Amino acid sequence: MTESITQSLTDAERRPVGTLEGRHSIATDTDSGPLPLDGPEAGVILERTRASVDPELRAAIESLPDGMRRVARYHFGWEHADGTPAAGNAGKAIRPALVLTTAAALGGPGARAAAVRAAVAVELVHNFTLLHDDVMDRDTTRRHRSTAWTVFGVPDAILAGDALQALAQRLLAQDPHPAAGAAAVRLAACVVELCEGQQVDTAMERRGPADVTLDQVLAMAEAKTGALLGCACAVGALYAGASAADVEAVDAFGREAGLAFQLIDDVIGIWGDPSRTGKPAGADLAARKKSLPVVAALTSGTPAAVELAELYEAPYDGGDLEPTVLAVERAGGRDWAQAQASDRMARAMHELSRAIPDPEAAGGLLALAEFVTRRSS
Amino acid sequence: MTESITQSLTDAERRPVGTLEGRHSIATDTDSGPLPLDGPEAGVILERTRASVDPELRAAIESLPDGMRRVARYHFGWEHADGTPAAGNAGKAIRPALVLTTAAALGGPGARAAAVRAAVAVELVHNFTLLHDDVMDRDTTRRHRSTAWTVFGVPDAILAGDALQALAQRLLAQDPHPAAGAAAVRLAACVVELCEGQQVDTAMERRGPADVTLDQVLAMAEAKTGALLGCACAVGALYAGASAADVEAVDAFGREAGLAFQLIDDVIGIWGDPSRTGKPAGADLAARKKSLPVVAALTSGTPAAVELAELYEAPYDGGDLEPTVLAVERAGGRDWAQAQASDRMARAMHELSRAIPDPEAAGGLLALAEFVTRRSS
Repeated sequence: MTESITQSLTDAERRPVGTLEGRHSIATDTDSGPLPLDGPEAGVILERTRASVDPELRAAIESLPDGMRRVARYHFGWEHADGTPAAGNAGKAIRPALVLTTAAALGGPGARAAAVRAAVAVELVHNFTLLHDDVMDRDTTRRHRSTAWTVFGVPDAILAGDALQALAQRLLAQDPHPAAGAAAVRLAACVVELCEGQQVDTAMERRGPADVTLDQVLAMAEAKTGALLGCACAVGALYAGASAADVEAVDAFGREAGLAFQLIDDVIGIWGDPSRTGKPAGADLAARKKSLPVVAALTSGTPAAVELAELYEAPYDGGDLEPTVLAVERAGGRDWAQAQASDRMARAMHELSRAIPDPEAAGGLLALAEFVTRRSS
Repeated sequence: MTESITQSLTDAERRPVGTLEGRHSIATDTDSGPLPLDGPEAGVILERTRASVDPELRAAIESLPDGMRRVARYHFGWEHADGTPAAGNAGKAIRPALVLTTAAALGGPGARAAAVRAAVAVELVHNFTLLHDDVMDRDTTRRHRSTAWTVFGVPDAILAGDALQALAQRLLAQDPHPAAGAAAVRLAACVVELCEGQQVDTAMERRGPADVTLDQVLAMAEAKTGALLGCACAVGALYAGASAADVEAVDAFGREAGLAFQLIDDVIGIWGDPSRTGKPAGADLAARKKSLPVVAALTSGTPAAVELAELYEAPYDGGDLEPTVLAVERAGGRDWAQAQASDRMARAMHELSRAIPDPEAAGGLLALAEFVTRRSS
């Protein structure tokens, strides 16, 4: 199933570029043609984003009362559990980069500078959902470290998440920029959608394999993964003073790119190389996760779908996963997911070209979209 | 110790008026003299508040996606767990009443009408904290019903709380009133303070009886109970266009009244009549809670304090609680708490008279303050 909303993304960020079949076609088989290879590098954009966002992000966290500040500093990788400074691995700041890059593309450097506070708000919301998702999913590792709830306990992790959501909204409410109010409305609506995605996700995992439709799992993935990427772009567009149509177009761009990412992430969850993913082969199948390729296979109406449903009805017994992997493949789950990912990236590019027709201006966003879907192992 | 932030208040609301010693002196031993008995009745104010607030509150909840809407409808008492309609026992709406009554007192009926959306936002924040506090504290009963997490599971209760916080901020961000931005900043800062109160509370419960100071427990009670009552008043004042000094004065009024309430609640937790409280006598002592009277006793430097600390070092063995009750009394815990409660109510009245010198205009707020501290059993 789709992973905790951006555990996946942050996992993705540390994986080396590699060999996922279909990757290159995903990045280039679009209405907009091949990526502008002379455009800005995603790595440079992300580094610039962190330089712009970090001071305000740290100031927001430092404003927290003691107990929650410790949890947040740990969660962001700035401190070890004992409070000593850590090198920091706070994630790659994809979402703030989408805010700032969209603002710059539609409004120039002034809009980018004005949107820094909003970019911090988006990053705070993202991290609030990570803290809470880890509690709900009982995940014990994030960014190569123990999750906050395992270190500080469930109450402190819940409270730190609550406080980060409040900080995000406080930043926007204090921002005198004329777009701040609209950004706050959009971000709050996005939080509700993120919650919905997580809620449907946990509910679906409790259901039998026959009780989940492809539309449901796609809608869940869009809410859980696509919504905040879309919101980040939309907030950037608002700070650039973009038209309502352009705001919606970049929102759709972010959503479609997020879905493409999730599809590829789910493919890797089954067919990824364990030596690169750090997870055992077929880990998602062993956990009986209803990931996108699995649900596509289950609902394919093929003989292999029946076989897969039977396998999924029983808990994993520790045996050979190969028959399950093959059932998903024979039922068309892998082909479907790869075709869908290509299709979603094509749609993303199309939406982007509507808002930002100039390929040079759109180059940064294209590079970021390529980056989040550049999965290899 | 201080209970989950307004479990206490809602418990208070269903207790009949009764016999708590010192109650009448609390309500009348103030700078402002006796309550204006010909002023508005708290019951009428609360009823009018619910009539004003309920439509907007229900509309906000109805806007939620299916899964979270079910949890919220249940939590507010509008539905049973199976989704059938319930008579509804959503609490007495003390906080929205403070918003609307302060707005009316400082700005007249127009300000009251304009502040309805903000009152709903405050009530949403309150209920978000209830949902999360119940998860953290593993409380199984609220408002005479099973808590949401026991019915829908921890993830859904966390997510519903997250969504209510987002709804609260969305309402303010969508509100064109000129005070909405300042109210949003204040409410977000209050959420951080509420989280801090809950965080310190859970941390203090893990400490030994010798490791908690009276200042710490008072600060915790102010953050956990006083802050949102103060914020509610402050938000009402903002919508009335009040001066910064008046906003701070009514905030202090709400905080002090909240602390008075908590002190009385803690006294009842030890000396309340079980036939009225519905809890066994001395329940807080059996749970070794570090309530305000207990910490006052522990830090009194008396021989009884030593005795109480020894009793508190060991978990409750199911035996007679009377020696523990007497140790708190002999160490001065009860007298201190009642004197403190009187003092806090006096301060509350003083703050209120600074912002609203006319006793008739202040009558509604006085009645509400009297109501929240009118504890009997």
